[in-house]
Amino acid sequence: MRNIRTDLAVEAREISSIDGKDIPGVKVSSEEIEGIDINRVHVLSQLGERNIGKPTGKYITLESTYIKERDPVFEEKLSKQLAEEIRGLVDIQDRTKVLIVGLGNWNITPDSLGPKVVQRTMVTRHLLELIPDKVDERVRSVSAISPGVLGITGIETGEIIRGVVEKTRPDIIIAVDALASRHTNRIGVTIQLADSGINPGSGIGNKRMGLSKETLGVTTVAIGVPTVVYAYTIGKDILRLLSEKGRSVGSGMDYMNEEGLESMLRQVLSDNMGDLVVTPKDIDIMIDNIAGIISDGINLALHDNITIDEVRTFLH
Amino acid sequence: MRNIRTDLAVEAREISSIDGKDIPGVKVSSEEIEGIDINRVHVLSQLGERNIGKPTGKYITLESTYIKERDPVFEEKLSKQLAEEIRGLVDIQDRTKVLIVGLGNWNITPDSLGPKVVQRTMVTRHLLELIPDKVDERVRSVSAISPGVLGITGIETGEIIRGVVEKTRPDIIIAVDALASRHTNRIGVTIQLADSGINPGSGIGNKRMGLSKETLGVTTVAIGVPTVVYAYTIGKDILRLLSEKGRSVGSGMDYMNEEGLESMLRQVLSDNMGDLVVTPKDIDIMIDNIAGIISDGINLALHDNITIDEVRTFLH
Amino acid sequence: MRNIRTDLAVEAREISSIDGKDIPGVKVSSEEIEGIDINRVHVLSQLGERNIGKPTGKYITLESTYIKERDPVFEEKLSKQLAEEIRGLVDIQDRTKVLIVGLGNWNITPDSLGPKVVQRTMVTRHLLELIPDKVDERVRSVSAISPGVLGITGIETGEIIRGVVEKTRPDIIIAVDALASRHTNRIGVTIQLADSGINPGSGIGNKRMGLSKETLGVTTVAIGVPTVVYAYTIGKDILRLLSEKGRSVGSGMDYMNEEGLESMLRQVLSDNMGDLVVTPKDIDIMIDNIAGIISDGINLALHDNITIDEVRTFLH
Amino acid sequence: MRNIRTDLAVEAREISSIDGKDIPGVKVSSEEIEGIDINRVHVLSQLGERNIGKPTGKYITLESTYIKERDPVFEEKLSKQLAEEIRGLVDIQDRTKVLIVGLGNWNITPDSLGPKVVQRTMVTRHLLELIPDKVDERVRSVSAISPGVLGITGIETGEIIRGVVEKTRPDIIIAVDALASRHTNRIGVTIQLADSGINPGSGIGNKRMGLSKETLGVTTVAIGVPTVVYAYTIGKDILRLLSEKGRSVGSGMDYMNEEGLESMLRQVLSDNMGDLVVTPKDIDIMIDNIAGIISDGINLALHDNITIDEVRTFLH
Repeated sequence: MRNIRTDLAVEAREISSIDGKDIPGVKVSSEEIEGIDINRVHVLSQLGERNIGKPTGKYITLESTYIKERDPVFEEKLSKQLAEEIRGLVDIQDRTKVLIVGLGNWNITPDSLGPKVVQRTMVTRHLLELIPDKVDERVRSVSAISPGVLGITGIETGEIIRGVVEKTRPDIIIAVDALASRHTNRIGVTIQLADSGINPGSGIGNKRMGLSKETLGVTTVAIGVPTVVYAYTIGKDILRLLSEKGRSVGSGMDYMNEEGLESMLRQVLSDNMGDLVVTPKDIDIMIDNIAGIISDGINLALHDNITIDEVRTFLH
Repeated sequence: MRNIRTDLAVEAREISSIDGKDIPGVKVSSEEIEGIDINRVHVLSQLGERNIGKPTGKYITLESTYIKERDPVFEEKLSKQLAEEIRGLVDIQDRTKVLIVGLGNWNITPDSLGPKVVQRTMVTRHLLELIPDKVDERVRSVSAISPGVLGITGIETGEIIRGVVEKTRPDIIIAVDALASRHTNRIGVTIQLADSGINPGSGIGNKRMGLSKETLGVTTVAIGVPTVVYAYTIGKDILRLLSEKGRSVGSGMDYMNEEGLESMLRQVLSDNMGDLVVTPKDIDIMIDNIAGIISDGINLALHDNITIDEVRTFLH
Repeated sequence: MRNIRTDLAVEAREISSIDGKDIPGVKVSSEEIEGIDINRVHVLSQLGERNIGKPTGKYITLESTYIKERDPVFEEKLSKQLAEEIRGLVDIQDRTKVLIVGLGNWNITPDSLGPKVVQRTMVTRHLLELIPDKVDERVRSVSAISPGVLGITGIETGEIIRGVVEKTRPDIIIAVDALASRHTNRIGVTIQLADSGINPGSGIGNKRMGLSKETLGVTTVAIGVPTVVYAYTIGKDILRLLSEKGRSVGSGMDYMNEEGLESMLRQVLSDNMGDLVVTPKDIDIMIDNIAGIISDGINLALHDNITIDEVRTFLH
Repeated sequence: MRNIRTDLAVEAREISSIDGKDIPGVKVSSEEIEGIDINRVHVLSQLGERNIGKPTGKYITLESTYIKERDPVFEEKLSKQLAEEIRGLVDIQDRTKVLIVGLGNWNITPDSLGPKVVQRTMVTRHLLELIPDKVDERVRSVSAISPGVLGITGIETGEIIRGVVEKTRPDIIIAVDALASRHTNRIGVTIQLADSGINPGSGIGNKRMGLSKETLGVTTVAIGVPTVVYAYTIGKDILRLLSEKGRSVGSGMDYMNEEGLESMLRQVLSDNMGDLVVTPKDIDIMIDNIAGIISDGINLALHDNITIDEVRTFLH
């Protein structure tokens, strides 16, 4: 596994696969439905884990550059497809109780996706407990929390969520987070779902506790969207491309291995590069838009036969 | 006990005491320190509880209309006095771990006090766990959370906090909340501390779980400031005054008991009065100001020999 | 004219009319369309101005307690009716340029209606100027600004808007503001339109400059929704009702004129009552909801044959 | 002039100067005061303008990596030095009226510097007009506005400000904005002042109107802090370094001119690179901190003999 930050399994596969060949322990398929490219990466075993650097589980990406056009008809299709994929990963019954977790820092625009999705989620658990007779029977029990990041609370997000889970006993957790991607062209156009959980935050120290079936005892679906690329990644990509394309682009560079590339990068970049991220200039609009698509998808998935119009009623 | 909403023990005492006489089971004292009126109500026993309608415990109010002048010298005095009162209620040692809880709804200006205080609190727990050598030795472990209200999360605030407490094991909880008062002239000029805990929220249903030593197993200091008065309270006050002052103000009304007053009020007020609150027009400025005073007080109380300037460094 | 704060013409009429009789210089009519009560008050002349205490012009209120049900089908009806009423007050042609002004203070929940409507308005002026070929031909030129209140900018809102108007030369101004009503039961269920302009702010001093055809040289439609009632108004109402209903409610009070009522009120209320407002507890949800209805109405009114779905595309 | 986006004169000078030699028409000096590196670039003439690519005027940068330590003693020094530099650029008398303009988009963290500074500015103009007797005589008339960006209002920022200027007639404008730098190590540690005005926004189209003495008729001091670097700049820097250092870093590249570099970059980077910016991960904390330093500096500069404590009183 090369040392590049990506939260996307589809990218991990690209990195890990040599010449696009199959990776042992990993099953891959793709299809296109109504203009949405759907990739499914299934990490089957520990062998697969080692080969691709992601825990066993199913990873699905929905991708379409057409998201950028902000066509409401397409967005509704995408929300419905997302709803279907969620229902494919977890079994939602009438009595299923779901906790939505909005990860990330609401003070930083590209990291605010999770909290924004939570804001637009139909929260119903208290109504079903307190005034069950007044709630439409198609509505299932949903609670939601944006716990804030470690720097704001002083508490690992995983600890807060574990505490809440023990008190409220949800059957399923859906955790939404902004991701880092390897490629700038994936920013804002890719939605990843995974049933293997998620590691919140970018990690000071190494005591991080993930959100997953193992740590929480509850099936955890992670929904993520790349909103940043690490600046270091871009630098390294440029060098790799030069080293690969060599004289054809006039670089005069010979092919260089990863170590050589990193050594060169360290010589030309300033020290703090590791803490820099790359993000689109209109990130505020992009986040608002995609938060709407994801929250619609979640709302449609969780309740029985509900329409987007009904969701909007509920959310005023 | 008359049926009037007040979160202040000092007001409960006023209501409960007949002609200002002592109330059995309740000890009361007051002093003035540097322009701050300090009232201490100690509910000693179940007898006191019944008489005053508040759980046993110590209730301290710091009060000064001079708060409105926004004099930084006075505000620093007030923060220091608040710090001293906090340290009088709970024993803070070098290893004491504190959790600050900001109660209330950040979307409603008069209810946003708790979350605003949390924003200005020195959060240190993660630093002491991850990079203890880099943290000044006077700094104690502080974590902080604004869980959001029931309507936002679908979860009782008490459940969330109990979960967090079980995972993080603080020694002390400080919960900050906006309160309802009986008198408009207490809005924004009174700070109440209590070691008996607090009941968050205004309560749909009756399943509310308070934050207290009993429910959380951890000593809980509540800090509250009246930011609203119920409209109903104002209406009833007017009637009571008329009924008491009678012909001296030209009302022609005879003295009327509580039942009579409420019956009359129901006839003249519209139905939704119960959900209306009264608040100052410049509530945004008031909340910002008092949140600064309280967070300074908390920061001074928790860390050892720290100055307000050092607090501001930490919080940038 | 009695000395009670109301921003609603329909209430001014109620106050001014004796026994519901016609008021000279004022024409009144009402109808009900699809569950919406529509009242039209036309102040025809200076005589009417004096009688009702409002400038000459047309005042329309759309009112329905059903707003509180948050039924999306009804809300769309209401937005469409609002659009129709806007188009009835001003002539909107293909080349008509409109400036939306969001009045009020975004830091105070009940005063944030105007800024929230501006946030959801389709702003197109820059697109039509910079990339006209890429803009749908049904779209008209709309700009929008939330100038902030006097305490935030140090500048009269009227001065800022007059400056912007002189530079951008709109043909029509639509100004949206939160209003004070006399009755708590009008809060959040009434939308008033007027072509006589609006006076922003609550007024420190008396140099206030209104937004109107006279001051700006541009036809100004004001859209307002009552979000608060002055606490003083409630107090006075209670006294008046007691004085009117007299012994029938057991008050024992004799009929009292306004002066008598005010004198009594001064004796029983604390001094700062003038700066207190009454507002619902769930004001955040109410404001969000009504801001959506009004912005949809404005968007539908201004552009040619556009649908709510298309509006949502534009606004992501 | 090479085609690299920088808003800093000190960087423009670095780019333009060959081997660090003097640039005709440009005077440069530097000093260090209490740990702050101060650079002064004076563009004297049209010759200087052509050579350095910046309008005639004085450009001052205050720079210190020590800003990152968040030492309140140092921050107060920096605010005081900033105040002194402001007073060196413009003549502030008792009757001088100042308008503060907060440029940028409050929805995007690295672009929210201007609006955040405006929030912490002492706004006094309305007090001096309405209640002059109650205002301390050392206080000068200050108004402030954050007009929002073109995409929010549909109006060029320059047009809004010109309108406000014509109505309120300030003697001096201070415009605060987030800048783009060429070097990531300048982000958040450099404050630039200039008396030549500023061009708000990043520019759709080419009709942009700057804020300057020429366009507004009022002396305009621009205060800016680099908060982003264009991703394209980083890519180009890497290539340039490789081309310059050549075989010494093992790149094998020969020296290449700008055209060659850009052609190569276009071949390896995706198309949307032009709209990507690089920013630190903890940008929220950085912006809050530097907004405090700048607003303190402005408040100290504008009023006579006022202290930081007095400023904090005023601002609660």
